[in-house]
Formats: sequence, structure tokens, C-alpha cells
Amino acid sequence: MTTTTAELDTLATAAAAAAPIWRGADAATRASWLRAAADALDAHIDELVAIADEETRLGETRLRGEVGRTTGQLRLFATVVEEGSYFELTVDDADPSATPPRPELRRMLTGVGPVAVFSASNFPFAFSVAGGDTASALAAGNPVIVKAHSGHPLLSERTAAIVAEALAAAGAPEGSLALVEGREAGNALVQHPVIQAAGFTGSLSGGRALFDLASGRPDPIPFYGELGSVNPVVITPAAIAARGEALAQGLVASFTLGVGQFCTKPGVVFVPAGAGFEELVAGFATGAAGGPLLTDRITAAFPAGIEHLEADPSVSVVAQGLPAEAGAAQPVVLSTDAAAVAARPETLLEECFGPVTLLVRYSSDDELLTALRAVPGSLTGTLHSEPDDEVADVLAVLERKAGRVLFAGWPTGVAVTWSQHHGGPWPATTSLHTSVGATAIRRFLRPVTFQDAPEALLPDVLRDASLATLPHRRNGALRVP
Amino acid sequence: MTTTTAELDTLATAAAAAAPIWRGADAATRASWLRAAADALDAHIDELVAIADEETRLGETRLRGEVGRTTGQLRLFATVVEEGSYFELTVDDADPSATPPRPELRRMLTGVGPVAVFSASNFPFAFSVAGGDTASALAAGNPVIVKAHSGHPLLSERTAAIVAEALAAAGAPEGSLALVEGREAGNALVQHPVIQAAGFTGSLSGGRALFDLASGRPDPIPFYGELGSVNPVVITPAAIAARGEALAQGLVASFTLGVGQFCTKPGVVFVPAGAGFEELVAGFATGAAGGPLLTDRITAAFPAGIEHLEADPSVSVVAQGLPAEAGAAQPVVLSTDAAAVAARPETLLEECFGPVTLLVRYSSDDELLTALRAVPGSLTGTLHSEPDDEVADVLAVLERKAGRVLFAGWPTGVAVTWSQHHGGPWPATTSLHTSVGATAIRRFLRPVTFQDAPEALLPDVLRDASLATLPHRRNGALRVP
Repeated sequence: MTTTTAELDTLATAAAAAAPIWRGADAATRASWLRAAADALDAHIDELVAIADEETRLGETRLRGEVGRTTGQLRLFATVVEEGSYFELTVDDADPSATPPRPELRRMLTGVGPVAVFSASNFPFAFSVAGGDTASALAAGNPVIVKAHSGHPLLSERTAAIVAEALAAAGAPEGSLALVEGREAGNALVQHPVIQAAGFTGSLSGGRALFDLASGRPDPIPFYGELGSVNPVVITPAAIAARGEALAQGLVASFTLGVGQFCTKPGVVFVPAGAGFEELVAGFATGAAGGPLLTDRITAAFPAGIEHLEADPSVSVVAQGLPAEAGAAQPVVLSTDAAAVAARPETLLEECFGPVTLLVRYSSDDELLTALRAVPGSLTGTLHSEPDDEVADVLAVLERKAGRVLFAGWPTGVAVTWSQHHGGPWPATTSLHTSVGATAIRRFLRPVTFQDAPEALLPDVLRDASLATLPHRRNGALRVP
Repeated sequence: MTTTTAELDTLATAAAAAAPIWRGADAATRASWLRAAADALDAHIDELVAIADEETRLGETRLRGEVGRTTGQLRLFATVVEEGSYFELTVDDADPSATPPRPELRRMLTGVGPVAVFSASNFPFAFSVAGGDTASALAAGNPVIVKAHSGHPLLSERTAAIVAEALAAAGAPEGSLALVEGREAGNALVQHPVIQAAGFTGSLSGGRALFDLASGRPDPIPFYGELGSVNPVVITPAAIAARGEALAQGLVASFTLGVGQFCTKPGVVFVPAGAGFEELVAGFATGAAGGPLLTDRITAAFPAGIEHLEADPSVSVVAQGLPAEAGAAQPVVLSTDAAAVAARPETLLEECFGPVTLLVRYSSDDELLTALRAVPGSLTGTLHSEPDDEVADVLAVLERKAGRVLFAGWPTGVAVTWSQHHGGPWPATTSLHTSVGATAIRRFLRPVTFQDAPEALLPDVLRDASLATLPHRRNGALRVP
């Protein structure tokens, strides 16, 4: 199904009409709408997981977990709305004695207006119709129009119908959540005058094209894209000496998790040359199972990605996983050396979707740092070291390359909390904001300051009675009720 | 003087080397650097004001005040750095019992890296070399390379030299602040790989061109532009009945302040038809003095802007101010009606730099609202009403059109405080952030989250000992020490 221009206009008009109602709804009401959406998804979990498994082949266990993550996100944002810090309420009282005299100023954040959300193939729930972008945009007080991913159209339609119905039953206005389908509709969506911001999770090429459309509008809008990440891992010789086997096992489990289709998959692993780590990895990798990828197109593209890497003269195959059935991807571990990575980063450090990882041997700290500096911006950077290791230089590079720096863990698995950051320098994301965790709401808010407003004309949250119950700053001092 | 590509590379390399030192400097150190810059500007005020007056013709009184505003901004950002909320420190403790088990996450904001600042013609101090963009970028922990405005090159060079010397004397690294000159150097600056964000204050055409360069980079960077604003004012019949004379006097003072060259100049004023307000305005405007504009080019362009408006058949001249000397601009009040504005917003609502304002007569609330909805995004929106007026619909439009909504005041005059917002929907600004006030710092920060980090490897501010002294959120609860 493809959404026509006329259909999009109708949906956009409804979203525009719903926007002031979402913005104006008080915290309890908006939180109740988010929870109603979560409850409805939970109530339909059997039906939704069955459709999702048919369309994405991700398996029931993973998909049930992902529904829980998705409804958990909606409920987290309900608490974020209730907690109220996201308003950034700030008051400076008038100071007639200042030069020049200072008026009273009251600042808050408010919804930007209708938001476009482009859903991802690899998280049919958590980064799709009712996923994190949608949850944070709604929480911010904005209606959402979702561009369905072509990889799971039936699930998208059913999810949108369930959520829209739940929102309506809870009293939210018509136009709160809508779905469009087809690439042309997506392009039109991000350029539609009603749309004030866009969230995207997907490929670098697709995201870049939409970013260019959003930026090229007569009135450019913010485009928050999560576009690709190789998620570098650095392992020191001391870490291998202390726990090489566990590291090898952990790596294999992480890069094959979800058939290597997580955006935080460890794609490039810097390991000391001659420490025997390749052999340890091979020991676990040969027993690792692959599986079908999300779509036939993605499955068909997987060998081409491997061949592209293997074509580099420095690359050799360390191990292959269990033989895959037709239409499935077989895990692969490749290796190269740090000098090759530093010389040809465009070839060797391109993100490769699916169960493959590249071990990069380094023989000195200099070699490691030179190659690590060639790594593009990433969502995560991981360090496995021991307490006596000198890691300041490596950490300094990882912290500039990645939005989340991990120690002694693996990057797959992204907790949805207040302190999470899922973002990083280009091409990991396009922005200074996260797409996972409580602060994702900031992407869809704009400030407005009221100067010398009569109390009766102030938005409710900026009146003194509300300030007494909400976190706010007054005359420079942060106050928590 | 024009900066060559080789010179820019040298400056960028120095900025890149200075970046980790600025980021890593503790709050007391970074605050001391900002205060050293402010002190040095204050110490050189006589010399700087003399150069500025020669180059911008803004007059000694205004320019002395602007130096005070500029050093006040630098000192405000020193307190912002010391207060520490800007870090957005957020910790979620590990929860091994969660499904899946939750790691410890510690989030902070950190400097994005070297920032480009494009300075404005109309604020040779406060929005120029050491102005608000520079102050907030330095406060965030980033070196700055300023593109000097061609309207005040000598002042730019001297300001940069004084600030750079003061920073060096205070112990800041080489490369903390540099200056480039010439349009080509500016274009190269915003595209330079070292630059991670840009701030701009200026024209819509110039800003749009730089925005497109920033967005078109292989690695797009955020571009924070303040590009133009007509700053609508709405006056109700009851307000005119209650205080028409004071309103007329206030309007004339505001639109002629600084010879009409403030970005918050009230450019379009909606007034009830037949209420006699045009006559009241004429009474004050005929005695209003104009003056030379910032540059000969700007002065020469002023009559063309007026003629463009006057060419519309609906427009008539309400009043002219005192005759201007050669090379100076004479204040002008024009009028039209709401129907014409609604029909031809591109012509009638274009920003016109200099001492001119357009009165727009409305005969009904419908006429007013229809015309008001045609107003482009603005920095400010002002309402003059009386307590019994029904203004909800007007306020709803103003709040969507403008970043700052004023009551019973005039938009010229922008207090530099925690709660200020200087921004608005396109073309007022390109972003969801302010360029004036404490929260301007957020533009030049990026989040980074540390997962399960050994305390010894955490940045100092994220360790428990620091958290005890700084505002932070832990397990969802906001805490103020």
C-alpha cells in the first residue's frame, strides 16, 4: 500500500489539529494517554508477535521481549512527563534596579508540533510505529506520523491501529498517530509544512537522503537520524591474559546476537597481535548459529558485504559459524591488521549488517591509536582492560568517537533509562541528542519565554502554584519540590 | 585582510589541539578563563569603544553599554560553568535483578569540539568576536574560531588580540580563540573538518548559504543561525483606549532605538482600524531622530526597502521622522491593512532593517488572526491588551510564531539571564535552542554515557565525590546539593 499525496495532506491536517490538544494536555492526561498505548500493546502481544515473527523472522522470544521494551519505553516517558524536569521551567523575577531594568521572564519547553518518525527494520516494535521516537515525541506533546518500514507492513498497520484506537479511547484527539507507507510518501512526509521535526533509524544512505530533504526545506527542520555504527572494541594484552576465553565467548555472543542485526553490534575489535585471541574466538565462533536475516533482500546482501571486506589483501577468514540453511546468514569472523585499517578505513570500517565482525591486530599502542582514530563516529566504544593498563589515550579517542563508552561489557543491549545515551558523532547520529532514554524527549521540544505576563495568561505550568510542585530554576537557583 | 586556506588550517590545527584542554579543564579553571577575558575587555573599554564608534557609528553611550553586556555575558557563563547543571549529570545505578540486568550508566554533557562563530554587524561586541556565541562555546569547553564581520574589521582584530592575550595569560592553551576574515574563509571555516558546530547572527540569505554548507558536509554539523525577525506586535482596542498615547510613544522609541537595527525591532504592528492610533504614532514619529546606519552599504539599502513596501498599493506613509543628514536614515512609519498582509505576506512581512515599522489595521478578530498567521517565525511576539480582552486565540498564535512572548512591553532589550529565550521558528532561528541566556551553552555540548566504568577511569565530574557537590539526577530523582 502506498499513501497518496492527498491522503498525507488529510493526515497532516488532522495532526496539526491535534497538536495544540497534545501540547495543552496536563501531565496526568498526557501520561495516561502514553500508558493507554502501552496497555493496548501488552493486551495484543500474542497477535502482534505472531505478525512480527512472520514478517521479520526474529523469533518469538526476542519479539516478546521487544514488546516489553516498547511498552516499558512508553511508561518511562509517562513518568518523565509527570516528573516535569523536561519542561526546564526557569523564572527570573523582575529587577527594576538593574541597568537596564530587568523584566520578569518565565521560560518553558513546549512541543515543536507534529513529528515524522521513520521506523527501523531491525526493531519492529522498539524503533518502529510505537517505538522510542514515537514515545518521546508524544511525551513532548506532539502528534506523530510514522513512515512504516517496508520490512514489516502488516505489523506496522496493526500496531498503528491498536495504538490509535487506545489513544482515542483514552480521550486523545483524532490525528494523534497516523501511518504512511511507501518511499515517496516518506519523502513527502519529511518535507510537509505541518511536520516540525523528524526521527529516523536506518541506513546511512537512506538517512542521508532524508536529512538532505529536511535540511533543504524552505523552513529546515531538525532531523534526528541514527544511521550506522561499527562500535569499536579495544582489548588490551593484559585483559586477554586475564580472561581471554571469556572475552572471546562474550564477543561471539554479542556479534551474533539477533543474527548480528543490532545497531550496537561490535563490528571492529582491536586485539593485540600474537596473543592468541583469534584462536580463542575461532573456538567459539565455529559453534555459533546464524539464521535468516530480516528480509530476503538483507539476506541476499550479506555475502556481498563479506566479499567486499575479503577483497582487501590484508583480510583473512578466522572462522565461520555453523553452516546456514538456504536463505540464512552464516556467522563469520574476519581479521586484518591495524596498518591496513589506518590505510583503508573506507573499505575496512564500513558497517556490515549481519553476523560478522572484524578483528584488527595491533602491535603497539601507536598502531592501535592511529587505527582507532580512523574509526568513524559510533554509538558505542568498548574497552576491555586491566587495572594496571595505561588506557588514558585510548579512552580519550573512544570518548570522542562514541556516545556510550563501555567497560568490561558488550555494546549490544541498550538499557532504557534516564542516563542512557544512544547517539554519537556522524554517521552514528546527526544530532547532539539521544534516541534512547529519558532525554530523547528534548529533541521534540522548543523553548518559549513569557515576559511580564499576567498570571492569568501564563501557561499553567509556569504559574507560581505549579512551580511549587515541579523542578524549576528561580533566579539562578535550581529547586526540587 | 583575507585569511588563506593555509592560515585557516593552521588555526584549525591549533583549535583541535586546544579542545581537549578546554574540555578537560575543571569548572574553576574554565570560569577563571572566561572572567579573564571579561576583565581584559573592561580594561580596554576606552580603546575598543573608540574603534567601534569609528567603524559602526553606533555612538559611545550605546557601545559602552554593549561592552558591559558582553563582559556580563562572559561572567554569567562563568557562573553557569560553576553551577554545574549544564553537565546534566545523570546516574542510574546497576540493577542486576532487572530483565535484562541493568549496568551502571553515568551520563554527562561534554564539549562538541571547536566551534565557528559568525559575528553580527549590529552588535560589534555582544554578538561579535567575544559575544554570546563565543562565550557559550568557550563555557561549554570548546575553542572558537570567529569569522569577523566585514563591518568592523579593526575592532574584530583588536578584540580577538585582547581576548587571546588574556586567555593565554590566564593559562588557557594556544588556539583558544582565533579570527578569520573574508567571505571565502567563512565558507571554508564552516566546512572545515575540525569545526563541530557553528553559531551565526545575520541575514537570512547569508545564514541560509552557510546553513546549507554546514548541512551539506560529508559529516553535517549543527548550525545555529539567527536569521531575521519581524517581531509582530498586537494592540487591542481596549489597550489603545486605556493608554494609546503611551503605546504610541513606546512604539516609536522601540522601532527607532539603535536606528532600528536591533534584531528584535517591532517591524509589524497590528492595530485596530479607526482607533486613532496612526495619528498618535505620527505625533511622536515626526519628532524622532534617525541617524547613520552601520555601514554605507546598509544606509544605501534602506530607501530601497521602504520603496519595496511602498510599491504595494495598500501601503501609505503615516509619518516621517526628523529629516536625515546625507548618509543617514530617516525614521518612517507605514501602514496597510490586514487583508493586504494576509494576501501578500512575502512583500509586506519581509524584515526591513532600519528605523521603519508597518502598522497593520484590522477590523475584526478574524482579520487579525488571519493576518497574524501569515507572519513568519519571529524572535518575539508582543501583546498589548487589557484584563477584560479575550486574547487566548491571539496568544496561541504568538506562542507558535515567537520564542519570546511579551506583555505590556517592547521587544527591543534582551535581558541576559537564565530564563531568556532568543530564538524562534524559522527564519528567526534554525534551532530549538537560544543564542542569548544561560541555556545557549547547550548548543555546543554533546552527551556521553559511561557504562560500568571503574571510578578511576571516569571523568572527575561523574565520580561520586563530585556528584555530592553538583546538581545531578540519580535513579530518576533530581538532586541539588
